[in-house]
Amino acid sequence: MSKTRMAIEILEQPEALRRTLDELLPARDQVAQLAGRRRRVLFAARGTSDHAAIYGRYLLETHAGVLGGLLSPSVATHYRSRIDLSDALVVCVSQSGETAEIVETEAWARTGGAVTVAVTNVAGSPLANSAHLALTTQAGPEVAVPATKSHTTQLAAMAVIGTALAADPGALDVDLKRIPDEVAGLLEPDVSAAVAALKDASYVVVSGRGLMLGTALETALKLEETCLRPVRGYSYADFRHGPIAVVSDGVTAVLLAAPDGPLLTPMTELATDLSARGAVTVGIGGDAGFADRCSVHLAGPRLPEALAPVATIVPAQRVVEQLARALGLDPDSPRGLSKVATTDPDA
Amino acid sequence: MSKTRMAIEILEQPEALRRTLDELLPARDQVAQLAGRRRRVLFAARGTSDHAAIYGRYLLETHAGVLGGLLSPSVATHYRSRIDLSDALVVCVSQSGETAEIVETEAWARTGGAVTVAVTNVAGSPLANSAHLALTTQAGPEVAVPATKSHTTQLAAMAVIGTALAADPGALDVDLKRIPDEVAGLLEPDVSAAVAALKDASYVVVSGRGLMLGTALETALKLEETCLRPVRGYSYADFRHGPIAVVSDGVTAVLLAAPDGPLLTPMTELATDLSARGAVTVGIGGDAGFADRCSVHLAGPRLPEALAPVATIVPAQRVVEQLARALGLDPDSPRGLSKVATTDPDA
Repeated sequence: MSKTRMAIEILEQPEALRRTLDELLPARDQVAQLAGRRRRVLFAARGTSDHAAIYGRYLLETHAGVLGGLLSPSVATHYRSRIDLSDALVVCVSQSGETAEIVETEAWARTGGAVTVAVTNVAGSPLANSAHLALTTQAGPEVAVPATKSHTTQLAAMAVIGTALAADPGALDVDLKRIPDEVAGLLEPDVSAAVAALKDASYVVVSGRGLMLGTALETALKLEETCLRPVRGYSYADFRHGPIAVVSDGVTAVLLAAPDGPLLTPMTELATDLSARGAVTVGIGGDAGFADRCSVHLAGPRLPEALAPVATIVPAQRVVEQLARALGLDPDSPRGLSKVATTDPDA
Repeated sequence: MSKTRMAIEILEQPEALRRTLDELLPARDQVAQLAGRRRRVLFAARGTSDHAAIYGRYLLETHAGVLGGLLSPSVATHYRSRIDLSDALVVCVSQSGETAEIVETEAWARTGGAVTVAVTNVAGSPLANSAHLALTTQAGPEVAVPATKSHTTQLAAMAVIGTALAADPGALDVDLKRIPDEVAGLLEPDVSAAVAALKDASYVVVSGRGLMLGTALETALKLEETCLRPVRGYSYADFRHGPIAVVSDGVTAVLLAAPDGPLLTPMTELATDLSARGAVTVGIGGDAGFADRCSVHLAGPRLPEALAPVATIVPAQRVVEQLARALGLDPDSPRGLSKVATTDPDA
């Protein structure tokens, strides 16, 4: 059987990441210079790019001590509010560099006094051309509708920005440069038990926390849009806070965890609790203790929590691609989706 | 049949809102004084309180020209990051004033140089005692687990903070003072057609945008936790961006809209599009054109978009309460939920 485009693009990720890190790591000085004394970083993004931005935000806050935040594009595009952004670096993330509302938000941010960085996969795209600094990921052309290599290279760009603004930008470099190899190691293991657990589920929830929240939301979105079934992605806290009441037999919960860090213990407890409620739990990442508490477990990368999100999405991508096929769907072109994000179809 | 506590507390909202506005409107000067030259407002909240904070954030950005943002409590409670917050006013929202991670986040924010406001329903609660300024909503004791009057009074507190930091704090006062009467007018109309549309749905999605996003997320959470069924709340843009592909026959979409403002047209188009995909659409609020495009429509308040979210949740609350009973559930105490938010059960 010939491979799907999505499967091929998943396999291309080690090289795409290597090229992207080679291209972007030398740009850290420019990022730091552009930011200058500005100590607020705001992200503008949608969908998959927004999930990369969530990682970027947590990395900045936990590793660089810089406050991050997510802009609401409608404030720029529809309300056209005047807001002083002269203390802000605004990072706009769009694979194509053409997403109209992000292009518009970038222009609005500059008008408000922000300096801007564009993270796109297309040099010369409208977003790359208009921002003060363009960081171009080196994913190469992506044909399958579900973003894979364009997303992990966005995550690498976030790691570049997050470390650029830290007191010691090179502190994570040894691990940063190991990312392509770690991703390569995640491309082979059998994921069929996870596919089976999801195929039979009456309902799927996904959860992660802190640095791994974006990975959880991206996993949920990919399962939902590629496999055409409702999937709910929760932050750990929002899940605990109420909707966990919905969990019972027939629910499969996918849990994303880093191999270390302060949230590994709470995530392990969540796995235990969900099992007690009758859920099947599919764990990705974490450590041996976390793996023990999950019904099915897929190994994540051997990377510290600060960098683990760049690679932990890879086993989830493989599950999504195989699950779509198991459901008789075409992972390369799910119904109703196109490659360039269009929020307002008539805009 | 005797009324449920939730139904009684829904009916108490006009008086609870009147008391709250009487109490908090005179505190606008104190909010403005405390903020001083700080031009960043960050919210810390979970669950229902977080949905109030989302409204507060949009109101500040669209009405007061002040950048808002949502803090990630885990950055304070688990990562314990050192972040300079000396340009920030931090608003901590918790009905009980006891939610441990919000109490901890408030202390962390003060250590980082922030000035803090507590919005609680309990004078003398830990959060109210520790913040620089305590705003106490006047909902009175709330017995039913699903928050109703404690939430709408939180929304009123957000309106107080949002207008306090605007150039002309009194600009919306005529409409602000009409809120209790507008809510009273929403307590009588028949909502049984909406209940029927939701009862028969195979899957429920909820969407809203901009100032109405928090209302959409709150509606989704209430449907999910009170009626024990998976419900997905989407921002308009995230919905359009991908998961709309999941919509087909058997889906009921609840759409929240304000009677005016720049997002009414996109929301009306969304209703049209969802109908074309085979969904049943339940519209709440909006104008006559919006109502025409929805399969079922419930009137919202006659309030400008900036204030409409304080009241638009009320018809949704009534639908939730009646739907829970129609499903044979007890709206007052859904399974697995307690009144004080506990994110980490062992904390």
